[in-house]
Amino acid sequence: MNFSSKLLENAVNEFASLPGIGQKTALRLVLHLLNQPQADVEKFSHTLLQLRNEIRFCETCHNISDQKVCEICSAVKRDKSLICIVEDTRDVMAIENTGQYHGVYHVLGGLISPMDGVGPSDLNIESLINRIDNSGANEVILALSATMEGDTTIFYLYKKLKDKNIQISAIARGIAFGGELEYVDEITLGRSIATRIPYENTLAR
Amino acid sequence: MNFSSKLLENAVNEFASLPGIGQKTALRLVLHLLNQPQADVEKFSHTLLQLRNEIRFCETCHNISDQKVCEICSAVKRDKSLICIVEDTRDVMAIENTGQYHGVYHVLGGLISPMDGVGPSDLNIESLINRIDNSGANEVILALSATMEGDTTIFYLYKKLKDKNIQISAIARGIAFGGELEYVDEITLGRSIATRIPYENTLAR
Repeated sequence: MNFSSKLLENAVNEFASLPGIGQKTALRLVLHLLNQPQADVEKFSHTLLQLRNEIRFCETCHNISDQKVCEICSAVKRDKSLICIVEDTRDVMAIENTGQYHGVYHVLGGLISPMDGVGPSDLNIESLINRIDNSGANEVILALSATMEGDTTIFYLYKKLKDKNIQISAIARGIAFGGELEYVDEITLGRSIATRIPYENTLAR
Repeated sequence: MNFSSKLLENAVNEFASLPGIGQKTALRLVLHLLNQPQADVEKFSHTLLQLRNEIRFCETCHNISDQKVCEICSAVKRDKSLICIVEDTRDVMAIENTGQYHGVYHVLGGLISPMDGVGPSDLNIESLINRIDNSGANEVILALSATMEGDTTIFYLYKKLKDKNIQISAIARGIAFGGELEYVDEITLGRSIATRIPYENTLAR
């Protein structure tokens, strides 16, 4: 694209560097901002800067937090003996939204992915092991994506944790509620039969 | 959505205020920026601020520009007697990309839209009329969108300009190149037959 102004071009390039935003969308966003009052754009700019400079991560679970220890880790009524291991803060938000979980979290900050150069040492795994050794945890739940990277990470964590005296669980995989059998892929359906559970257990809630 | 941090929530809300970006996309963008080096986020923030504070509009055609008069208006080889009237800077870029136009532009900065409270006085129409009166323009091309607002604006401009001693043209509407007749809507197809042109004219280039 040929821009009539260098300032415009710079701003479009910054937006286009964000994931999922191309040059045309970036131009639309920039022209929208140009039409906004100056104070609004200043607020936008300042909010981003403040986020990047002042954001902190919980010392215990590594979730994004405004305090040294996040609200979940410092809540009295959360069960500290149950730790749910997730990839990032979006997964924490998704699980919190269900209202079904009353334990605490541990945010890995990514998944093991040799293709992207992400190894176990780049993730918050050492602090997880220290945490399990030094706290009274008696169960961890592996709640990672069912992708190649997720499975690799789950297997690595399982090997690291299997000799500790704790229960290692994985979230249930199977047919989604409301899902029709005929449209489900065969791997999910096959595994859901292989890992079937007693009907009485599905009533327990 | 429940956020674990106020800073995170503020940044997500700022992004979600942009057109076409919802809360989930905004969260993805913000988490991406959080993973970037601090200097990159500072550059992003600074670029936006600089754009909003330092951007200028060409005094002649109102296109976005870094100088008082934009490159197109100050170029010696552009035909100043031919003025193409467009809605905004994106249309200028689109027409420039064709490489087929060698006149100058006039950017209205919007379209007449009573629903959105945009009247003729909110657009750069007065300066267009002064420009036509005081420069040696002998043709204007109305290159506005074929929407309700575009047609309203075209009709308003036509009434204002019809007594001036200039040719008023509109861009050709019809079947796109590569378009198949059977898939074209009937209004476009009907109008393209009503406004047919001599075959020899399509060869002239």
